[in-house]
Amino acid sequence: MNKVHNFSAGPAILPQSAIDASILALQNFSGTGLSLLEVSHRSKEYEAVVAEACQLVKDILKISNDYEVIFLQGGASLQFDMIPMNFLKPESSAAYVNTGVWAARAIKEAKMFGKVNVLASSEEKNYNFIPKDYTIPTDVNYYHCTSNNTIYGTEMFTFPNSPVPMICDMSSDIFSRPFDVTKFDMIYAGAQKNMGPAGATLVIIKKSFLEKANDNVPTMLNYKIHVENGSMYNTPSVFAIFVCMHTLRWIKSIGLEGMEVRNKAKADLLYAEIDRNPLFTGTVVKEDRSRMNVNFVLSDKALEAPFLKFCEERNLSGLKGHRSVGGLRASLYNALDIDSVQILVNTMQEFEKASTHAAVAN
Amino acid sequence: MNKVHNFSAGPAILPQSAIDASILALQNFSGTGLSLLEVSHRSKEYEAVVAEACQLVKDILKISNDYEVIFLQGGASLQFDMIPMNFLKPESSAAYVNTGVWAARAIKEAKMFGKVNVLASSEEKNYNFIPKDYTIPTDVNYYHCTSNNTIYGTEMFTFPNSPVPMICDMSSDIFSRPFDVTKFDMIYAGAQKNMGPAGATLVIIKKSFLEKANDNVPTMLNYKIHVENGSMYNTPSVFAIFVCMHTLRWIKSIGLEGMEVRNKAKADLLYAEIDRNPLFTGTVVKEDRSRMNVNFVLSDKALEAPFLKFCEERNLSGLKGHRSVGGLRASLYNALDIDSVQILVNTMQEFEKASTHAAVAN
Repeated sequence: MNKVHNFSAGPAILPQSAIDASILALQNFSGTGLSLLEVSHRSKEYEAVVAEACQLVKDILKISNDYEVIFLQGGASLQFDMIPMNFLKPESSAAYVNTGVWAARAIKEAKMFGKVNVLASSEEKNYNFIPKDYTIPTDVNYYHCTSNNTIYGTEMFTFPNSPVPMICDMSSDIFSRPFDVTKFDMIYAGAQKNMGPAGATLVIIKKSFLEKANDNVPTMLNYKIHVENGSMYNTPSVFAIFVCMHTLRWIKSIGLEGMEVRNKAKADLLYAEIDRNPLFTGTVVKEDRSRMNVNFVLSDKALEAPFLKFCEERNLSGLKGHRSVGGLRASLYNALDIDSVQILVNTMQEFEKASTHAAVAN
Repeated sequence: MNKVHNFSAGPAILPQSAIDASILALQNFSGTGLSLLEVSHRSKEYEAVVAEACQLVKDILKISNDYEVIFLQGGASLQFDMIPMNFLKPESSAAYVNTGVWAARAIKEAKMFGKVNVLASSEEKNYNFIPKDYTIPTDVNYYHCTSNNTIYGTEMFTFPNSPVPMICDMSSDIFSRPFDVTKFDMIYAGAQKNMGPAGATLVIIKKSFLEKANDNVPTMLNYKIHVENGSMYNTPSVFAIFVCMHTLRWIKSIGLEGMEVRNKAKADLLYAEIDRNPLFTGTVVKEDRSRMNVNFVLSDKALEAPFLKFCEERNLSGLKGHRSVGGLRASLYNALDIDSVQILVNTMQEFEKASTHAAVAN
């Protein structure tokens, strides 16, 4: 079978080394003679996996001992609930920026627990830009933002200097470039884009912020409990954390500076073609274009389905836009090779020639 | 490497067919040319996995259309919170039976959301029996029980006729024997004992009970939302559900009647040896002895460590009791072969001979 070029928005492409290591571990995990699926999460061999995964996160992001690193379940969506349950009260407020469906879901959940101040929104422009003209108030418990908006293809390349604890959902661009962790009190990310398979959620939280968490939070939704138990309050998502560990090993081997070079080159290549090729139009304001999710449409909507078929025939997979926005989306996560992007660009050029030829023939 | 006999309490032994299918799917899932770890959960190939897993649960347990079947994340522990969040209010009550650490945790969580009536407890006897002498009140929202107590090795073989909706945590004995689903309004189970790997949680819920759920439950903790979205409100634990599906295929091929024969034979074999061999003593009241987790101690505690070493040398793994109770525990979940139990019994007899010999020599 020919190689499939995987542009899926998530679950998404992973480094082959992580997949290969997973296959071996399903056969015999760490010399135990048992499959990774059958070992106790309390075994010393598996405890070493969780410890290494957390340490790799600290190493890659240069995180000091002021922060805790844990792996949870439930995806970023459960964090939308856990954050206000831990850090908001009916009489207190939090500030959110509405930059897409996931940000809007985070806002909706927070409103169940306290007052929510939506500082800015790009909803009326179908989320095609990142609002920047707002002031974070000083009387809120935290400020929440979403660094990359998977569905719309916008990305925050700079973060505000927040006067209150800054919490960021980095599900779809974490580990894609260097950034200053010390600006944040909490960072979270569902694993299934840049870090691993579905089923694990990374939470990085500053100890001084954690101390401010509410009392009487239900146990499984209580960050303090999970931190005190080193991600092992109950049985964790054993296999998913293992794959994360191997993906993180690969990320560390390249480094975040190297990852940024890699990701910028891929995004530049594709956006240049979108801007050059008259058949295609980018949907996002240029300065906010995501390097992770490249959204574009066919200038002639009638060509969308034929182009998608054209791509599928060339083993280019996952290019259909999210069902809520339509169009096309190419996700260029860390593990995607630039060769795959080049083949997509070649395909766009080939389609252009075929279309021009067809138009002339007509 | 010689075969390891896996008596781990969970994550635990799985059928080889499920492990083999997982290895293949990590290489090329369902002919997509992509690893199972890299495919969209919205792909038609993966949606078929979730649909089949749910259908297999219905087929195996003979569940009517009066019930919904979903897969969630967070283990049984998150259910301890979700149940009272959905079905309890500060002014209403629920009835629980305290049969072990997990039951006690469920009680602790419920107390955060409403009034809890603990009908009976075996705590003062270190949970070595199942209380049966209690009446379920009619003025509670639900009655909650734990069918198998993994840590202590007790199991409920009959269930009360509850005048209110009965909810049961079946994490460690679901699919081990036939039972009448219609007695229950809700059944839940973490996958990692009898059904699959860690990272997935099965919830079976009666539609008429679901209708009684509270309004304003946070989205990710709201059963209605997960039911309406067919386990796909957000990205599910893709890999874990896939392994569950293959484990459920294996369970269906044997059937619950066959599974009970298999499990009873294993448990009878081991309990008979415990009762015969003067070196060992069972810790649980005989009528409540679990077929899933067999707890026992060495009559001479000084022999415990040597016996565990003796077992390890013979590739018998996972026999150490839970850290909170000590002693020994052999977990005999569905996928464990009777041969492994026979080898454990042979090892106990070998140890008896070696000990007698040593005693005579002294």
